[in-house]
Amino acid sequence: MSESALDAVITALRRLPGVGVKSAQRMAFHLLQHDRDGAEQLSVALQRALSAIRNCARCQTFTEDEVCRTCLDPARDASLLCVVESPADQAALERSGGYRGLYFVLMGRLSPLDGMGARDIGLQQLLARAAEPAVSEVILATSFTAEGDITAHVIADTLRSRGIRSTRLARGVPVGSELEHVDAGTIAHALHDRR
Amino acid sequence: MSESALDAVITALRRLPGVGVKSAQRMAFHLLQHDRDGAEQLSVALQRALSAIRNCARCQTFTEDEVCRTCLDPARDASLLCVVESPADQAALERSGGYRGLYFVLMGRLSPLDGMGARDIGLQQLLARAAEPAVSEVILATSFTAEGDITAHVIADTLRSRGIRSTRLARGVPVGSELEHVDAGTIAHALHDRR
Repeated sequence: MSESALDAVITALRRLPGVGVKSAQRMAFHLLQHDRDGAEQLSVALQRALSAIRNCARCQTFTEDEVCRTCLDPARDASLLCVVESPADQAALERSGGYRGLYFVLMGRLSPLDGMGARDIGLQQLLARAAEPAVSEVILATSFTAEGDITAHVIADTLRSRGIRSTRLARGVPVGSELEHVDAGTIAHALHDRR
Repeated sequence: MSESALDAVITALRRLPGVGVKSAQRMAFHLLQHDRDGAEQLSVALQRALSAIRNCARCQTFTEDEVCRTCLDPARDASLLCVVESPADQAALERSGGYRGLYFVLMGRLSPLDGMGARDIGLQQLLARAAEPAVSEVILATSFTAEGDITAHVIADTLRSRGIRSTRLARGVPVGSELEHVDAGTIAHALHDRR
């Protein structure tokens, strides 16, 4: 059995989130025995992304330019600034078709256990961005998880101390749900926020 | 949001076994935002493995040489040839400390649904290897799954037609198990093969 080159692949694969040693072994075996084209494709794609992808100077999302296309789009409503955790969350909002404003992407969330603090989510940059005269409303669209809620809370407090008001996405019953299958916390929030 | 370079990474990650689109997005985000060293390490390790790793000319396992160290080891018992599915299975047998013979690694198993046939597992090479005068026993150590059993069955039949006998690893109750937690099929086999 080869050691160094194979073990190096397994070690590198284990750095992927959610990949343990057994998964890494299976992935390495698959790539090197059954999908060498895939291994080449992954290696090249990573190199290309490392040199091409950076963070947008205005909103922090992934981009291959100085400023991303969304931030540069004159058709977007510059009075709305929506704060999300990740490019994936941003994409989910775009798919909803219900938002035409701009974004600020935290590229993470506050998580002391993972070492993610105010600096890591770009809180200062967000404050500067939210204080621009064009912005009339900041919408906090972090996840409705413990860490996402805390992140939204800290951002809302900090903005308020600068006299900037923010709103939060509504909590409630997901469209298409039957009530009996919705968890109690969601129903409690939907009751409290009834309109 | 960047499209091409980021999407290329996500597409490449989806070729890994067990990785769907959500996992691939999470992995790409992690690598490009929080672990660029890890992305570089993975890319380089894959390139190195692609150029360094090949299949042993004698046993088919991964090696960086023409013939692997195990096949070249004069201390191994050349009269025993153990047939396993993968380098990981070979490593498991090595860890057991109970085997000092040589190996033939199928690098897969018969699986018509996945397009794995006799040629893909190197059945002809195995026949030639098992027919060498030094080999007195072929031990079939494929998995005790449906596909592993069928693979062992086909190999045993083919070897028998050439007058070569083979044995199969014993089925039975795993060491350290309490009987009440062992599945019925295993107990039935352990009863049948009692000694």
